Amino acid sequence: MSPSTPGAAAGRDLPHPGRQQIRLEEVLHALADPVRLAVVSRLAVGDEELACSVFDVPVSKSTSTHHFRVLRESGVIRQVYRGTAKMNALRRADLDARFPGLLDAVLAATRHGHSQPVAG
Amino acid sequence: MSPSTPGAAAGRDLPHPGRQQIRLEEVLHALADPVRLAVVSRLAVGDEELACSVFDVPVSKSTSTHHFRVLRESGVIRQVYRGTAKMNALRRADLDARFPGLLDAVLAATRHGHSQPVAG
Repeated sequence: MSPSTPGAAAGRDLPHPGRQQIRLEEVLHALADPVRLAVVSRLAVGDEELACSVFDVPVSKSTSTHHFRVLRESGVIRQVYRGTAKMNALRRADLDARFPGLLDAVLAATRHGHSQPVAG
Repeated sequence: MSPSTPGAAAGRDLPHPGRQQIRLEEVLHALADPVRLAVVSRLAVGDEELACSVFDVPVSKSTSTHHFRVLRESGVIRQVYRGTAKMNALRRADLDARFPGLLDAVLAATRHGHSQPVAG
């Protein structure tokens, strides 16, 4: 009930744009990469929260962290700490409300193999 | 009926990806820019061919040329020379066939002001 969360926890809260701050260009940029598209496609299956370590991406740890940050800062995913794990979830409701049909069109194109396979 | 077009004309043919070569990531990248989105939105009105000079983009001539090239090379627009003018047309049929719903979702989001206005 206190107005601020205790320091340690607050310091681990990651910044996210609110629904109304999500911008089309930033979402398109975030999706315009085969590794990030693969992450989004995986998150879309079952709409569950997944740890970063679950994704088998053929890039270094720091590059992977960068990709997840781009997805979070654009508003495509939500990242929260649960203990020592950083968990990721697709912001499907926010994206569908903001850009109706966009995520579905992108996911459908990905499923039909019209994007570049991730080299691995 | 000759296999090659006369030199001068052929030399002015610009390279375009065929429909099956259009890749999702490249289209998303091409659309992930406010100037390029403005060009695409304008071309979508009436589906007509427009000269580059028609677009009132707040960037230098060389930057503008770069943006049109990104749109052409990704498969979003077709550029053809008609006399001295370079004419641009949206490849709507190709995009709709390849990524159903994607262009419509992007255009709708642009119309609803969910993208960044082009500074002028």
